[in-house]
Amino acid sequence: MAEPIDFYFDFSSPYAYFASTGIEALAAESGRELRWRPILLGPMFKATGSAPLTEVPLKGSYARHDFERTARLFDIPYRQPDPFPIGTVSAARSVLFLQKQGSDKVAPWARRLFSAYFAEQRNISDTNVVLALAGEMGLDSAAMAAGIARDDIKALLKTEVEGALARGVFGTPFIFVDGEPFWGFDRFDHIRKWLAMA
Amino acid sequence: MAEPIDFYFDFSSPYAYFASTGIEALAAESGRELRWRPILLGPMFKATGSAPLTEVPLKGSYARHDFERTARLFDIPYRQPDPFPIGTVSAARSVLFLQKQGSDKVAPWARRLFSAYFAEQRNISDTNVVLALAGEMGLDSAAMAAGIARDDIKALLKTEVEGALARGVFGTPFIFVDGEPFWGFDRFDHIRKWLAMA
Repeated sequence: MAEPIDFYFDFSSPYAYFASTGIEALAAESGRELRWRPILLGPMFKATGSAPLTEVPLKGSYARHDFERTARLFDIPYRQPDPFPIGTVSAARSVLFLQKQGSDKVAPWARRLFSAYFAEQRNISDTNVVLALAGEMGLDSAAMAAGIARDDIKALLKTEVEGALARGVFGTPFIFVDGEPFWGFDRFDHIRKWLAMA
Repeated sequence: MAEPIDFYFDFSSPYAYFASTGIEALAAESGRELRWRPILLGPMFKATGSAPLTEVPLKGSYARHDFERTARLFDIPYRQPDPFPIGTVSAARSVLFLQKQGSDKVAPWARRLFSAYFAEQRNISDTNVVLALAGEMGLDSAAMAAGIARDDIKALLKTEVEGALARGVFGTPFIFVDGEPFWGFDRFDHIRKWLAMA
């Protein structure tokens, strides 16, 4: 069995959202498992001396245009969220908590968080919104509330972010296939070509 | 006849080089002319507060890896140039000079400069190298030497850079199709989808 594909993402990244809609199919094509690895972009921006895309002069307005156009061209539901970007600590921790529980709902939960924010204007920086979404999906929101606040889950997110930085992650989506790094939704076809040549 | 496609590039940009190998085919697919528009990235970096890709922490080493991998995956001849990046004022001016002359050699000349730098380790920041390449191709290198030094050609390059900035160009390759902006070699498939939907 080939190594799982590592999918690093921040829930506030539009290109990570786009990637989330297709990456399971991509993994399945090569018979691989997918590891959903939520991280936070803040520390990456600090490490590279950069800023959220939409705050960069010139690049920012292009990026907003590209978000909406990419969604349209790839037929992905999208409504530019407001506020944007947002903090995603609770959302990230909720995924790590489910993983630690051994839940089989990790993937649908991560996809749900992404689409709530990027297609339904639900502000997942608010822990209450995260918990409400969990309840709607039939997850135990009381257990999740406790999980998000647990010290070991907080520590795990820090470790994940540090581990990602140590592997050279500086933005999301960031994808590793057998240790080979790919940055961006626009690297999906590169991944396919790379797998075909491997 | 549809509008020509505007192709903005800096001769020191690897992704612009990759784009240069396929953009004529892309334009031809939609029955369009292609306008080769050399610019300089320096003023764009200033406007966006950014730096050459390879000088950004973390991003830099990924970028170098991505240059070589992209070349391999798309079957484009590539040898990481050294020195890199370089100043491309003379190369850019030489293209503008040929355009102003009404030469029919603009496209092969631009492609020649790109491949000399990115596949053959010839340092086109050196005006003498540019002129030698022109001679090898059967162009009048004495006329080109005079052209590169002409005040109107110098002014034209400045105007082109300012015009690009005014249109929102912040990196290269930057491509306009009917005013629609696309940044990056990795937007070729977006351009194709966009043209198909237009």
